[in-house]
Amino acid sequence: MLSKNQQKLVRALAQKKYRKQHGLYLVQGEKNVLELLVAQIEVQQIFATPQFVNTHQNELKHSKVIECDEQSLSKVSTLVSNNAAIAIVPIPEQQSIDKSGLVIALDGVSDPGNLGTIIRVADWYGLKQIIVSEDCADHLNPKVISATMGSFARINVVRTDLSHFLSHYKGAVYGAYLDGQSVHKAEFNQSGVLVMGSESHGIRPHLSQYINQPITIPAFGGAESLNVAMATGIILDNIRRSV
Amino acid sequence: MLSKNQQKLVRALAQKKYRKQHGLYLVQGEKNVLELLVAQIEVQQIFATPQFVNTHQNELKHSKVIECDEQSLSKVSTLVSNNAAIAIVPIPEQQSIDKSGLVIALDGVSDPGNLGTIIRVADWYGLKQIIVSEDCADHLNPKVISATMGSFARINVVRTDLSHFLSHYKGAVYGAYLDGQSVHKAEFNQSGVLVMGSESHGIRPHLSQYINQPITIPAFGGAESLNVAMATGIILDNIRRSV
Repeated sequence: MLSKNQQKLVRALAQKKYRKQHGLYLVQGEKNVLELLVAQIEVQQIFATPQFVNTHQNELKHSKVIECDEQSLSKVSTLVSNNAAIAIVPIPEQQSIDKSGLVIALDGVSDPGNLGTIIRVADWYGLKQIIVSEDCADHLNPKVISATMGSFARINVVRTDLSHFLSHYKGAVYGAYLDGQSVHKAEFNQSGVLVMGSESHGIRPHLSQYINQPITIPAFGGAESLNVAMATGIILDNIRRSV
Repeated sequence: MLSKNQQKLVRALAQKKYRKQHGLYLVQGEKNVLELLVAQIEVQQIFATPQFVNTHQNELKHSKVIECDEQSLSKVSTLVSNNAAIAIVPIPEQQSIDKSGLVIALDGVSDPGNLGTIIRVADWYGLKQIIVSEDCADHLNPKVISATMGSFARINVVRTDLSHFLSHYKGAVYGAYLDGQSVHKAEFNQSGVLVMGSESHGIRPHLSQYINQPITIPAFGGAESLNVAMATGIILDNIRRSV
């Protein structure tokens, strides 16, 4: 069972200010908690159903686990389904940016679902590093982690001043615009930075000066734009097909 | 202002059983209502802010419009933002399936956000026809329409027995599997059917017999799967790049 204080803590961690205050974040749901364990990320506490504990004894052998029924987990969870496990995890210190491969830079992507989906598709295409502007969604938001389907454990997300980063970056800087070179024709490096803007504002002007390869996903129909996560996935597919 | 009865009707239409009962559905938000008008789809009634009415006088000249403040629209809307207009629209009779181009067939895609995103990306790539199994999300669900960002007005969605349809279809039937031919290497026709399964169950066995071209999006990293809407967009991009 979760004590009153534990319930209060789990609920509080849905909010950024309490994550910051406690230095902790939540990982919820069977798939995400398992990926956390597989990646051997330090966990402070796990609450899980007896069934989860039974099935995953091996992965759990170094963890502090409290067994709870699914109903009490659902009561404190922000998920609507799949409440087999909840982990409380210390927020790690921000790591340095790995510039060796392809890096995604997100400018003002504030929707948690989009950020989570971008982390998932970046992981599919083998990226390791995403950098986000200060006004992007918090990558430790439970909705982001849930949308990553476990990929949060393999992608390093660093919040930074994109303008400062790009001004020191030497290499290809791709930026998604509506009037760049077609991604069906562009030649891509397997290292570089791919800058994606928000759906409402695109890439903001202060970053445009750093983009040396503007690119576009060709349109064939009536839609005016694509969702930013969708556009990111399609561009990554075009980059990787030349591997 | 909306009368009590109008408020009740708008709220009811968020639910499928009342949409069916009244033969009506909702289109909400500036972008979606505008696309409805541009496509000259028959509208029963529009509620809109004075600002919306002023800005779009031309598009609105054949419509029955009641002016309301944004606050009263927000009170009945299912959207969290962008409540400049709400339209009540008669559900059209189900149209016949246009088999002339590329058709997407969705098997058990129950998440409204995914269905809406698929309609939007299908429109981007110039498709006209989507068919959905009986257990897919209702394409007239307000969450679906909202996620289409106006593309609902250009894509014909028909609910049908996919097995029956495919058993009579002559042509290429592509199906997304984890072990098909790489979409980076496959040769595509610009007509055919692309079958996409749900994230939890994939393409169900009773449809597999009709798929003559199993395809796969190559993975380069650790993620086990892609969101179904994302996968649909990436496959469409691969099909259209050979145009």
